[in-house]
Amino acid sequence: MGIVLQGGTVVTATDCYQGDVRLEGEKIAAIGSQVIQPDDEVISVNGCYLFPGGIDTHTHFDLNTGTTVTADDFSSGTAAAVLGGTTTILDFATQNKGETLQQAVENWQQKAVGKSYSDFGFHMAITDWHEQIEQEMFHLVHDEGISSFKLYLAYKGTLQVDDGVLFAALKRSPQIGALMAFHCENGDVISQLIKEKLAQGLVSPRYHPISHPAAAEQEAVARVLSLAEIARAPAYIVHVSCASALESIAAARNRGVEVYAESCPQYLLLHESCYETDDFTAAKYVMSPPLRLMSDTQALWTGLSRGAINTLGTDHCSFNYAGQKDLGIHDFSKIPNGIPGVENRLGLMYTYGVLTGKITLNQFVALIATNGAKLFGLFPQKGTIAPGSDADIVVWDPTYRGMIRQETLRQRVDYTPYERFAQTGKARHVFLRGRQVVVSGKLQEEPSGRYLFRKPFYSETVKN
Amino acid sequence: MGIVLQGGTVVTATDCYQGDVRLEGEKIAAIGSQVIQPDDEVISVNGCYLFPGGIDTHTHFDLNTGTTVTADDFSSGTAAAVLGGTTTILDFATQNKGETLQQAVENWQQKAVGKSYSDFGFHMAITDWHEQIEQEMFHLVHDEGISSFKLYLAYKGTLQVDDGVLFAALKRSPQIGALMAFHCENGDVISQLIKEKLAQGLVSPRYHPISHPAAAEQEAVARVLSLAEIARAPAYIVHVSCASALESIAAARNRGVEVYAESCPQYLLLHESCYETDDFTAAKYVMSPPLRLMSDTQALWTGLSRGAINTLGTDHCSFNYAGQKDLGIHDFSKIPNGIPGVENRLGLMYTYGVLTGKITLNQFVALIATNGAKLFGLFPQKGTIAPGSDADIVVWDPTYRGMIRQETLRQRVDYTPYERFAQTGKARHVFLRGRQVVVSGKLQEEPSGRYLFRKPFYSETVKN
Amino acid sequence: MGIVLQGGTVVTATDCYQGDVRLEGEKIAAIGSQVIQPDDEVISVNGCYLFPGGIDTHTHFDLNTGTTVTADDFSSGTAAAVLGGTTTILDFATQNKGETLQQAVENWQQKAVGKSYSDFGFHMAITDWHEQIEQEMFHLVHDEGISSFKLYLAYKGTLQVDDGVLFAALKRSPQIGALMAFHCENGDVISQLIKEKLAQGLVSPRYHPISHPAAAEQEAVARVLSLAEIARAPAYIVHVSCASALESIAAARNRGVEVYAESCPQYLLLHESCYETDDFTAAKYVMSPPLRLMSDTQALWTGLSRGAINTLGTDHCSFNYAGQKDLGIHDFSKIPNGIPGVENRLGLMYTYGVLTGKITLNQFVALIATNGAKLFGLFPQKGTIAPGSDADIVVWDPTYRGMIRQETLRQRVDYTPYERFAQTGKARHVFLRGRQVVVSGKLQEEPSGRYLFRKPFYSETVKN
Amino acid sequence: MGIVLQGGTVVTATDCYQGDVRLEGEKIAAIGSQVIQPDDEVISVNGCYLFPGGIDTHTHFDLNTGTTVTADDFSSGTAAAVLGGTTTILDFATQNKGETLQQAVENWQQKAVGKSYSDFGFHMAITDWHEQIEQEMFHLVHDEGISSFKLYLAYKGTLQVDDGVLFAALKRSPQIGALMAFHCENGDVISQLIKEKLAQGLVSPRYHPISHPAAAEQEAVARVLSLAEIARAPAYIVHVSCASALESIAAARNRGVEVYAESCPQYLLLHESCYETDDFTAAKYVMSPPLRLMSDTQALWTGLSRGAINTLGTDHCSFNYAGQKDLGIHDFSKIPNGIPGVENRLGLMYTYGVLTGKITLNQFVALIATNGAKLFGLFPQKGTIAPGSDADIVVWDPTYRGMIRQETLRQRVDYTPYERFAQTGKARHVFLRGRQVVVSGKLQEEPSGRYLFRKPFYSETVKN
Repeated sequence: MGIVLQGGTVVTATDCYQGDVRLEGEKIAAIGSQVIQPDDEVISVNGCYLFPGGIDTHTHFDLNTGTTVTADDFSSGTAAAVLGGTTTILDFATQNKGETLQQAVENWQQKAVGKSYSDFGFHMAITDWHEQIEQEMFHLVHDEGISSFKLYLAYKGTLQVDDGVLFAALKRSPQIGALMAFHCENGDVISQLIKEKLAQGLVSPRYHPISHPAAAEQEAVARVLSLAEIARAPAYIVHVSCASALESIAAARNRGVEVYAESCPQYLLLHESCYETDDFTAAKYVMSPPLRLMSDTQALWTGLSRGAINTLGTDHCSFNYAGQKDLGIHDFSKIPNGIPGVENRLGLMYTYGVLTGKITLNQFVALIATNGAKLFGLFPQKGTIAPGSDADIVVWDPTYRGMIRQETLRQRVDYTPYERFAQTGKARHVFLRGRQVVVSGKLQEEPSGRYLFRKPFYSETVKN
Repeated sequence: MGIVLQGGTVVTATDCYQGDVRLEGEKIAAIGSQVIQPDDEVISVNGCYLFPGGIDTHTHFDLNTGTTVTADDFSSGTAAAVLGGTTTILDFATQNKGETLQQAVENWQQKAVGKSYSDFGFHMAITDWHEQIEQEMFHLVHDEGISSFKLYLAYKGTLQVDDGVLFAALKRSPQIGALMAFHCENGDVISQLIKEKLAQGLVSPRYHPISHPAAAEQEAVARVLSLAEIARAPAYIVHVSCASALESIAAARNRGVEVYAESCPQYLLLHESCYETDDFTAAKYVMSPPLRLMSDTQALWTGLSRGAINTLGTDHCSFNYAGQKDLGIHDFSKIPNGIPGVENRLGLMYTYGVLTGKITLNQFVALIATNGAKLFGLFPQKGTIAPGSDADIVVWDPTYRGMIRQETLRQRVDYTPYERFAQTGKARHVFLRGRQVVVSGKLQEEPSGRYLFRKPFYSETVKN
Repeated sequence: MGIVLQGGTVVTATDCYQGDVRLEGEKIAAIGSQVIQPDDEVISVNGCYLFPGGIDTHTHFDLNTGTTVTADDFSSGTAAAVLGGTTTILDFATQNKGETLQQAVENWQQKAVGKSYSDFGFHMAITDWHEQIEQEMFHLVHDEGISSFKLYLAYKGTLQVDDGVLFAALKRSPQIGALMAFHCENGDVISQLIKEKLAQGLVSPRYHPISHPAAAEQEAVARVLSLAEIARAPAYIVHVSCASALESIAAARNRGVEVYAESCPQYLLLHESCYETDDFTAAKYVMSPPLRLMSDTQALWTGLSRGAINTLGTDHCSFNYAGQKDLGIHDFSKIPNGIPGVENRLGLMYTYGVLTGKITLNQFVALIATNGAKLFGLFPQKGTIAPGSDADIVVWDPTYRGMIRQETLRQRVDYTPYERFAQTGKARHVFLRGRQVVVSGKLQEEPSGRYLFRKPFYSETVKN
Repeated sequence: MGIVLQGGTVVTATDCYQGDVRLEGEKIAAIGSQVIQPDDEVISVNGCYLFPGGIDTHTHFDLNTGTTVTADDFSSGTAAAVLGGTTTILDFATQNKGETLQQAVENWQQKAVGKSYSDFGFHMAITDWHEQIEQEMFHLVHDEGISSFKLYLAYKGTLQVDDGVLFAALKRSPQIGALMAFHCENGDVISQLIKEKLAQGLVSPRYHPISHPAAAEQEAVARVLSLAEIARAPAYIVHVSCASALESIAAARNRGVEVYAESCPQYLLLHESCYETDDFTAAKYVMSPPLRLMSDTQALWTGLSRGAINTLGTDHCSFNYAGQKDLGIHDFSKIPNGIPGVENRLGLMYTYGVLTGKITLNQFVALIATNGAKLFGLFPQKGTIAPGSDADIVVWDPTYRGMIRQETLRQRVDYTPYERFAQTGKARHVFLRGRQVVVSGKLQEEPSGRYLFRKPFYSETVKN
């Protein structure tokens, strides 16, 4: 006995067609006409789009930053994700200093298992490099299903690693089937600029972007890509926020470097003007990299449209304005960095990307699901609507019109940066491995998310 | 009653999965498991790939160049195409001086209708611009299904138009749903260089590439893209052959110009060294633009791999070495320009692109079929394997190993530039709109190709 | 008997030192201490700079545009020049259609000889190309002392030549010792844009810049430099006005093209905002290329400072607002193109370039005199203060402070675009070939300018 | 009583003219005709060029590298310099770990004072950064006359500093009148590559260039220039060796960064092929950065010709092949890095730059003397031939033809990398502050060099 979604329009990264979709167990069984089998349950999805379940390539749930813990954990975060049409999240398991990578994995498994409404996988953020780490990386790729690792060029003194580590990791990665991801901002420069501002008594959040200039991001991107070129390794740049960084990525790509770029809705929809206030509300937008200029936003949209950006994650890393963000009320550098977003990714990109003509429906699907699946070893299990794939399907109602309001969101944080943003289109039903987890916009209250053991990364199977 | 292709691996521009494909009438009806209906014919395609039928975006069949007529007409040309896995060709209907575009269309219909083994559409090559042409273009787009037009920056004195025409056409195109294509070489420069060589008594074909430098192509590409930028119009660059042209395309794309690029197997697989002989055999490789350096070839492969090139056509424009090419035996500028290729496109790209790891199977499909269909108003009728699409399917046998030999090719010309190239993989069966036109490598001897009335071009529906 | 200028600070393109300068006859005889000979006249120039006499590389005096004649002829124009510190002008002798170059030279000699207060040479603007022109160019270089030629990529239908002519001229130039100069705007595009605006009834001067976009200049610059690259010839770009054109020049230079760039004070000091009025006063600023954005201005200043721009001419081409500019009162395309400037070049560049720290005194001298002399075959006769050079010397009083007012200018035109601009520093005395032609700011009323037979151009003697 | 050099051709960075030059005491008193005073000594220099004394911007004399000491000290090094036409050298005083900058200055004064045949100044190489260093830098600029400082991005673990130090130093420099210089190679990458090669048993000098790739230099250049852009500070890049680094410099300059570039004769005249041997002789060419490709060489020559490179130093850092270079006979990373060159700079650049037409005589003078003087606070005392400047003059005999042979060189090292290079032109006489220190090619055996207290660096006084 299966389920047939009848009368919808299937959208993949390439196709867009009318077709009934038959689910059987956890998988998609068939697509087209005359696919209904006796005993099948038929759900009419007339007038709706069927998208593959969204994949958020970048979340931080239940993360202890040293001074506080993110407002959302795997329970609230993935509940929000699923309601927004995201059925898979990739969270950054983050090594603590002194910890083995294996310990970090176990730590993260504990946070997630049994609590997640969406399926989930982990990237591993390495913060404490040593000789044995290369061995551990190999183990993680092949025994734990973790085939992507992130290194930080920012956060001097805590997360930041030096160029020797970046280069060693890059060199190693193609040998072990790993893809290296990088937070690209020059932490040395930023650290100096922060010190300088604070020394001048400039402590309000408006000095956050001033001490995180776009040139510090561009430099870090260019550096990583030079290292990748010498190492002959692919690289994934997380949360690209500015035009100059994108230009450095394009330049590297033109000379043959295999580079993938991620951006986030906030860098497409919000601007530096959010910081132009002397009161502390600017703290709501404190994240790294910070919001940029209108011209950067335009360049990012062009990048999406022209294929220069591959994925859209949210970097969901939520802190309450009251009680958390205010840790930095007298010192902007102490404001926990990050904003929420996991619940609104599809709605925002559909409304402001697809409906404005900036990206096509196919590009939308590629950006919010397919490309992430391919890059992170989940394809074709995830990321597409095709026979044999997991039956992760978003039934998208394009007739919905509403407004984003903090009070109606599921995520567990006291504000949204998208407050009062209009939204058109919405996830009506959501299926996760054949099970309907959202019914007419309501979440089934029982977490059924599962850990995803991901495949290794090999360039030739991914390029797009 | 339908046909089910059972046990193959379906490949689209995005997906790759095991699935049975059911054809009904001219269309694909369903894909997946349990799709067989009573009375269906089942054809086992175990171990084979199923590709959407190839689309050759660039052919010249039955073209009168003034001094001779191409060796292949629509009959021989499309027969060769189909045997090679190409079920749709887009030929350049070419306006003669003094002719209306309508007359050119009728002329080309006459050449093609009833003789074509593949489906076919026309681009219109405009050579005689005047005020009324804009009206005619509108008519062609909406009443004749011809939504793409080519202008020549080369061939001074015959096909070449001036920048005013280029600009007027670009300005007009988005208003009428047309996509402008351009042959980019600076004809003024080339004409001077040819004159110079001939004046020095340098008449052998080795002076053809010397009088067609890469910089003359790059200049023309950059110029067209500046004009497109001012006109806010999309542009399609045919047969890109060199690294510098590709760089100009990338630069334009980065600053937001909507530009699409086509290349051809010859520019990926053959080099300038083909001209390095003093005998006349170099004439076999005389085409415009000419073959380039190894470094250009590498840049083009990188461009394919990184998404900078959108389509692969052949520019099939065949002339017999004996009796046609030798028109230029005493003057290289009189050698008819062009080479054959339509029969070998899929085999070459699969062997030298996919199997070498330079492009993925998905990129292969995008390049040889999907992207062309999208850009030229044929999608989703053509270019993909999806319910509702035309049942144009290539059953590709990846176990075949052979060698390209002129004597075994169907095309009607006395040489192939790929003589003795090894080939792996081959079209075993080919279906055109549900009808099996190639059975175990043998062509059904009855042309069933149909004219394709193409949709207008609108940017927002195409971008990829 | 000589003249000694005592106590000044000599400034050359390289040096800046205290030194007495002794003039003997038409030449500089010695510099330094103890150079006074018995019977010498000693003029104290304490506290003043001594600059080499300015060279304006770009003027149009007594030019018939077809509908009118420039307000300034050689008499008024060179009088203004000398008062402003310019002792040499290079005017564009302009071939009329059907005329030989020789006839154009004679025509221009007649306009200038006996009337000029400054020394003068001619560039030749070729408007009617034919086979014999190459012969004529050779003759002009070697028999008439005219070693630079200008071609127009703009002014479709009148002055514009095609790429074949551009290329032929470039190819020929290094063989005959000529330097080719280019007015770079794409005339085809501009002509279409003008037609479009007029057809929409948009006839006021504010549509002049809109129909002359920066991209049309950039395209033309890039094209000429590609042609120069293929031809292996140097090129001189007149009146560069925008950032993108400068970038194309920098890119060409980086890949080895020998290119020289000229800009003008108006492109450094005035902006597009001058056109933002609906009344006809915007006509005062109608010139080609038009004034650009603030960001272009900044890029040009950077270009001056970093050595990307070689010379500063004025493109002085004056028309009275009343009686001449109003030819275009109902059609902006009929407004005579051009503005005055020859009298204010040194004052503006000293005030807004040197005193603001944007360029050094040495750069100032290089830009207003030395580089022009070197490029146009006048060095070391002109363009420097060195023993053996012509005694063309400007005694510059840096203490002067005033304001530019039309009513106090010598030039014969009814407005200045620099009205009410503050000016610091001024030519107190001016010497032309040893003769003091300006005494305490007053012109000696007797024209003593002489025709300059210039040397051929050979790259290796010029580069700087 | 003075000296008059009679009948020569004076060459400056701008001028080239016949003129007698009168020296009085240590200074140039007058230039031109009729400058001889009673009692003057007249030296005929008919047929010779008079160049300003050369300034070598980059030497390492008497440098202890930890394992050995350079073969040349200030005595032998400056004797060689003067014989070659270099009257001023700028040596890198190098701080030892734990030492104050003041101690380093005193250390270097001790090495140089009383032993130098040429005048000399010091750059300060900072290797041990701490908070107080900024204070010390201020002191050095204003009390010791040392206005340039070098930081190393290479030599991980010894000389290398991190980006925080680079940025702090850049930020500070314009405030204190200092110019920061940078050795740009990514030390982290190089250190990894060396480790990798050695681990593979690849110990011969041919692995030196392989472990010092051009991309590691380019990356470091781009990084420093991004930091300089954020800090709004000028930067000087020492010993640029490759095309890609030069492109990064050009790109930065185009966007307004104030950057100066130095290259060295070895990068213009020698190639990577020098390493292509399995015997140890390749050790003679071990330096950092290493010799590069022919295409890099060509790009550097273009850079010289087009003004992209400002100065030519030698990085003279000599080690005997026997007894010093062989410290690395079993491990290329232990070979002392450096080559000799101070004696041959003018001869090489004149022969291979001026006489080949690649650079003009004026560019030659600018590169070997004037620009260095301007950048390093010595102008107009040094670097030009003008009244009031030090009488440092090279009388250059252009008729000399010879061959460079180790045995005839004065420098104290057992090989020259330019062995058997032809040389045309030679310093016949050399004057240092009015005293003739080389007479007909023979050095006056008494060191008279003096320490040069240099002026602070302020951008506006330098740009050229």
